[in-house]
Amino acid sequence: MQFDLMIQNGTILTVNSRFDILQNGLIGVRNGKIEKITSLGKNEAPPPAKKVVDAGGGIIMPGLVNTHTHLPMTLFRGLADDLPLSEWLNDHIFPAEAAHITPESVRWGTRLACAEMLLSGTTTCCDGYFVEGEVAKAVVASGMRAVAGQGVIDFPAPGVPDPAENISTATDFVRQQMGQSDRITPSVFCHSPYTCSPETLRKAKRAADKLGVLFQIHLAETQTEYQQIQSEHGVSPVKYLDGLGLLDRNTLLVHAVWADAEDIKIISERGAKISHNPESNMKLASGVAPVPKFLAAGITVGLGTDGCASNNNLDLFQEMDTAAKLHKVHLADPTVMDAETVVRMATIEGAKAIGLDHLIGSIEIGKEADIIILDTAKPHLTPMYAPASHLVYAASGADVRHVIVGGRVVVKARELMTMDLKEVMAEVIAIAETIQNKNPGI
Amino acid sequence: MQFDLMIQNGTILTVNSRFDILQNGLIGVRNGKIEKITSLGKNEAPPPAKKVVDAGGGIIMPGLVNTHTHLPMTLFRGLADDLPLSEWLNDHIFPAEAAHITPESVRWGTRLACAEMLLSGTTTCCDGYFVEGEVAKAVVASGMRAVAGQGVIDFPAPGVPDPAENISTATDFVRQQMGQSDRITPSVFCHSPYTCSPETLRKAKRAADKLGVLFQIHLAETQTEYQQIQSEHGVSPVKYLDGLGLLDRNTLLVHAVWADAEDIKIISERGAKISHNPESNMKLASGVAPVPKFLAAGITVGLGTDGCASNNNLDLFQEMDTAAKLHKVHLADPTVMDAETVVRMATIEGAKAIGLDHLIGSIEIGKEADIIILDTAKPHLTPMYAPASHLVYAASGADVRHVIVGGRVVVKARELMTMDLKEVMAEVIAIAETIQNKNPGI
Repeated sequence: MQFDLMIQNGTILTVNSRFDILQNGLIGVRNGKIEKITSLGKNEAPPPAKKVVDAGGGIIMPGLVNTHTHLPMTLFRGLADDLPLSEWLNDHIFPAEAAHITPESVRWGTRLACAEMLLSGTTTCCDGYFVEGEVAKAVVASGMRAVAGQGVIDFPAPGVPDPAENISTATDFVRQQMGQSDRITPSVFCHSPYTCSPETLRKAKRAADKLGVLFQIHLAETQTEYQQIQSEHGVSPVKYLDGLGLLDRNTLLVHAVWADAEDIKIISERGAKISHNPESNMKLASGVAPVPKFLAAGITVGLGTDGCASNNNLDLFQEMDTAAKLHKVHLADPTVMDAETVVRMATIEGAKAIGLDHLIGSIEIGKEADIIILDTAKPHLTPMYAPASHLVYAASGADVRHVIVGGRVVVKARELMTMDLKEVMAEVIAIAETIQNKNPGI
Repeated sequence: MQFDLMIQNGTILTVNSRFDILQNGLIGVRNGKIEKITSLGKNEAPPPAKKVVDAGGGIIMPGLVNTHTHLPMTLFRGLADDLPLSEWLNDHIFPAEAAHITPESVRWGTRLACAEMLLSGTTTCCDGYFVEGEVAKAVVASGMRAVAGQGVIDFPAPGVPDPAENISTATDFVRQQMGQSDRITPSVFCHSPYTCSPETLRKAKRAADKLGVLFQIHLAETQTEYQQIQSEHGVSPVKYLDGLGLLDRNTLLVHAVWADAEDIKIISERGAKISHNPESNMKLASGVAPVPKFLAAGITVGLGTDGCASNNNLDLFQEMDTAAKLHKVHLADPTVMDAETVVRMATIEGAKAIGLDHLIGSIEIGKEADIIILDTAKPHLTPMYAPASHLVYAASGADVRHVIVGGRVVVKARELMTMDLKEVMAEVIAIAETIQNKNPGI
């Protein structure tokens, strides 16, 4: 047998640099990697393979890359909505985290998140949370791929009761993870400039650099944050971080809603990347990130959903739709954020943003076989003049039928092969009952 | 047997005036109408019924009401995206309509639209198009309910080659439909103030009034339209229509994006209703309608998807999500458009907007049994602290499992009972191939 796995009978969206689309496409996989990509002639027989996935005439595309998650926060999905940001965070989310985040709950919350992501076509996420070792374990068991960032914050946090140990905990996490699983890339997740001192920010970045890992940070999410940094440090959040030496090619700035022309120039010059989370920014009324300007400045921008408490799902197809539409109305220009740009953002650009584009993000020879297949024989995807248009403007995660990560079929005909989904949901519901009982106001 | 149909074992969102939510709910239906709504005790046996729909622990709610569609435009789904409005309309949509809209293509396009709507939980729509008699027939055969409006425009249109006959064609349509099916409510759909002369507008409204039917009109969708009306008539589009005597309780204003404080006061005083289509307005970069101000002024606002060429699907769940988030970020206020408000907008307020709230839009005794059931045993709907939150922020149309219209089960376990879906999709694909061949630039 030439291939371990063959995917056939579908339209391949390669998302390579030419955005090649192959009709009646065929992908041969060996040792988890893509070895062959071709269009099959009308009467041509496919080569032999140990296992075949029939795409049923649907769309075959790279697995989606979610550049910003807090996986265990599935536990708080819909716990509190439609509230002012400070009330939402201080009266609901922070207390719920303090009371209910344990290694056990992190495991169940992460499993649920992985189930949801895989079933909606996301094969890689970039996570930042606490007790991140448990997150990484659950991700590996689910069959997904992730950049996993241990949180650094200058307050007592789950698993890090003494903030003095926040950086050493993150450093230990990164060292422990290295070489553990080829599907986990460890990282340092510094919470934000308004929850970490300048010293913590500098030390955390230095630690990440020493370990050679991605440095993730929430930045310039709200106008309040912008004004606070401006008033305390006399400069914008972007300039503040730049002054501390935090911006370079291994830095992922999450949100970057409040960035002016000078900020954009700095981000571009430093080569820092951006995670754009439009649904979270909308729901929390944070603002609209200047994404078309970032793109014009050559900055790499990936898409993210943010945690489940502020979105409230992890469906990157819906996030694509929102991203494409939000900037059009915001700039009064229907030509910005076209479908191809947004598909790239959810795949290869996301992979670049988190430093994994050598492995994932497109269907190209030598890359990991992280591939999803959409069933397009559905009324809302009929007719189909252009596949990219449907992915952005008409599809949802529920249209994903098969999911392959590193050559392994993890979702088959919408059935998750890597965990007992009913058990996971039952455990999360049990945890949620505890949360609700302690918050009778809900 | 007391009931023809009983729906049991789910959480009922009544969407009545108190927004009552009933755990372990039971709904008894007779002669297509809701006769009983109750919570069943733990060991209480449900009363006997000829037919039972088990909600499987999911959410039971009123069928969604889509207040603005152009059903046959499913044929053009994704035909042209990311273009300036005039280029999109004049170079793609209008020519495609002129070349490809026939009674035959209208039938297939409408069938596809009904399939998509029913499978995503919409049981009633308010449509406006041409060859509307064919639309009405296809809607009736699909099992759906609709307000069907025959288009009036001062240009040659499909089925109305001579614009001089536009109003008589609409009048004939309304008369023909009356008494035909209790699921079709005929209406007059006047295209817009920029495609109809003042005389046409006045006559069309007078005809609608004489027939006692809803008068639908696109209004104040774009800034260009606003400026055009302002320059030609010296007043805003709302004031222009008001001056022509077009605004009253039987008028549905579609879009109303460009409306200032005086316009809002006029709409409110006249009792005119609004169809809000946020995704279409975003995709075409038309602007953000002042919906929270409409609501504050006591104006009835329903949700709509618009036609498939400008959205590009008919999923009202995704429209709810977008509506809730768009206004939050636009007004920098996370408390506006809360989940309950948006659920009402997609159900009872939509029913009010199109004049059918005496029949549909909520689960209340005596109303038509237009009911949908969502399967909530899914990762993205777990856990569930508040059903309304999930409907707006986490669910999609794909979560709808059963759909009942007028007591008839039209979707059962996601299977459409009223048409051969494969045939419908195949016919639409065949029509789309003709469209694509005549537009090689696509």
